[in-house]
Amino acid sequence: MALIVKKFGGSSVANAERVFNVANIIIDDYKKGNDVVTVVSAQGDTTDDLIEKALEINPNGPSKREMDMLLSAGEQISCSLLAMAIESLGYPVVSLLGWQAGFQTNSTYSMARIKKVDPERINMELSKKNIVIVAGFQGLNKYDDITTLGRGGSDTSAVAIAATLKADRCQIYTDVDGVYTADPRLVSNAKKLKAITYNEMLELASLGAQVLNNRSVEMAKKYNVELEVLSSLERKEGTIVKEVTSMEKMLIRGVTKDDKVARISVIGLSDTPGVAFKLFNQLASKKINVDIILQSVGRNGTKDITFTVAMDNCTEAVATIEEMKTILNYSDIKSDLNVSKVSIVGAGMESHPGIASKMFEALFDKNINIQMIATSETKISVLIDAEDSERAVKAIHEKLIG
Amino acid sequence: MALIVKKFGGSSVANAERVFNVANIIIDDYKKGNDVVTVVSAQGDTTDDLIEKALEINPNGPSKREMDMLLSAGEQISCSLLAMAIESLGYPVVSLLGWQAGFQTNSTYSMARIKKVDPERINMELSKKNIVIVAGFQGLNKYDDITTLGRGGSDTSAVAIAATLKADRCQIYTDVDGVYTADPRLVSNAKKLKAITYNEMLELASLGAQVLNNRSVEMAKKYNVELEVLSSLERKEGTIVKEVTSMEKMLIRGVTKDDKVARISVIGLSDTPGVAFKLFNQLASKKINVDIILQSVGRNGTKDITFTVAMDNCTEAVATIEEMKTILNYSDIKSDLNVSKVSIVGAGMESHPGIASKMFEALFDKNINIQMIATSETKISVLIDAEDSERAVKAIHEKLIG
Repeated sequence: MALIVKKFGGSSVANAERVFNVANIIIDDYKKGNDVVTVVSAQGDTTDDLIEKALEINPNGPSKREMDMLLSAGEQISCSLLAMAIESLGYPVVSLLGWQAGFQTNSTYSMARIKKVDPERINMELSKKNIVIVAGFQGLNKYDDITTLGRGGSDTSAVAIAATLKADRCQIYTDVDGVYTADPRLVSNAKKLKAITYNEMLELASLGAQVLNNRSVEMAKKYNVELEVLSSLERKEGTIVKEVTSMEKMLIRGVTKDDKVARISVIGLSDTPGVAFKLFNQLASKKINVDIILQSVGRNGTKDITFTVAMDNCTEAVATIEEMKTILNYSDIKSDLNVSKVSIVGAGMESHPGIASKMFEALFDKNINIQMIATSETKISVLIDAEDSERAVKAIHEKLIG
Repeated sequence: MALIVKKFGGSSVANAERVFNVANIIIDDYKKGNDVVTVVSAQGDTTDDLIEKALEINPNGPSKREMDMLLSAGEQISCSLLAMAIESLGYPVVSLLGWQAGFQTNSTYSMARIKKVDPERINMELSKKNIVIVAGFQGLNKYDDITTLGRGGSDTSAVAIAATLKADRCQIYTDVDGVYTADPRLVSNAKKLKAITYNEMLELASLGAQVLNNRSVEMAKKYNVELEVLSSLERKEGTIVKEVTSMEKMLIRGVTKDDKVARISVIGLSDTPGVAFKLFNQLASKKINVDIILQSVGRNGTKDITFTVAMDNCTEAVATIEEMKTILNYSDIKSDLNVSKVSIVGAGMESHPGIASKMFEALFDKNINIQMIATSETKISVLIDAEDSERAVKAIHEKLIG
């Protein structure tokens, strides 16, 4: 007998048929004598429909406190419907809202952090042999007001419950059946990984492989919760995410691309100390994250700094630097949205220098120009023209994974 | 400065335009320096849509506990949207769910009774000069599970808050502008009443005038909460419901009809003591309410008993009596759904015997046959053919009210 936490996303419960599919997955594990707690997101487009209703009332965006009150109704609907499906199949079940399930958060509406999960109610229901369905994505702050955890928050809800209850497994069901070495829609012979470490998963997630929410992986790592990513539509093993994976031949875990980046170049900066500090400090104060940074060698007393930011932040980043014109005393500023970041991820790549050169060779073979390079313990990223990104992923995957 | 409780039904907040209409009504009272607490029902067809979703999952009807979990999402959506409209107009506002507003109920899911309203949170918000929006129809039981108060429960929510806070006024906004002497769609010169007593309102409500939920009137009477029934679409005075109304010339408060009744006749019962007791006791044990009762004079050692029940209960009532065939030893049982109950309501009618005869005269003039008659302190009801009911209401209204 094990304690299993499951999480199903909105598309997995989008209609009555899919709700019953999920109900049967849960019942199969319950029938084997397991305790099962399931976290569920809002059905299909419910959240988007509610956002639309809110923007119809206030196109400038309502307060986040009221927005959380509104959006949390979505998971309330899906968790009660899933419970109804299970009870109609003859199994004991109870649905719980975030606050009933003990989710205590801080008061950052729309992006609340979980402070604690009080397990009393869930444990009480499990002791009565009830299947427990929990509304994901939501909690309660110290004022007794409803908060939400931000998009993808249901993954975090599931991991938080698994950590609190010391669950044996935390299964995240999605519309893909695991983590692949590349997007299967892009690379036809992408391979499904049996296992991957938390760090590798974090690199993959932040690089654009939208399988697991990053906060949930961070929390799983912190509390050592073993995750499984698997399909809600097919009954087969998924990908395990854990601290250490057994040595596998394949060193590279995946090839990813991120098209939502922009490159900014500040040209003709005076080649004096503190220039880079002032520039990036100011961007940080505006909460603009900078990714790859390239600084030219000083020449004639000036230098250039080029860096990448998320595409959404490009306009604000450029405006911020323009405000600093007199302080930084540069000659020109350029930005380019037609770029893409292509990366390979795998633990311990630094000790295998051959991998980087193979990656560059794959790009050279296809005549793809590399604009910038960044490396870390677990990844190598290159910035290239956006129009080359799909060809690049395919070429690198073929050369390094096959 | 006064403390005003308002309640708006689902049609009053059915879309964004109407939500803003309601927001402006609230703001108008707030701007005058009043404290305003507003109870709101689910938007338009939301509740019906949610019921449909539930029946798609389980056509036999889900458990009431899960049904309450599901349906309470409807008021959660409408109360946050109304708050968003008010904040977008620049006024301080907070939405509260039933449990946040302090509604404690018993555990009769889908028909919960309010045990207590803890006013702490609402008072705290009012002291901060916030407009308070409360999700109607819902509360929390001692297990911390969500309950609903049954259809029309938002009226009861409003009266309960008004009673707890000792509000100066409790305004129930509907799609009609007050209580009329007859259904204005039926009787073109029906008159709007300025005031009506609780007892008269209760008679009108139970007789088919669907303006106010009966439980809410009973609660208003018990706690002496002065109600006003008024229109959310037109800004004009409605009808006041209170303990004592000033003497008005018009004795009759209204003429109503109820088409959802059935007549059942049990024929050839033995004319011995205890027969009626056994019959009605058994019906009561099945929670079937019996309304008008007519017992024939005994003849040849047998008698007939005829009575009316709500149309929905007719099949079960007949089945119940058929099960008692050997006990009651009757010869035949007949039921008729094509009947209608037409009533006149007014306090102290008993001391004005002329009124009954005028009512019967009006029916005689139109050649309408009276099947049964029932009288009480505040009403006179007749059972007639369903096809005659509209003509009957018009004729009686013309004769007694004009």
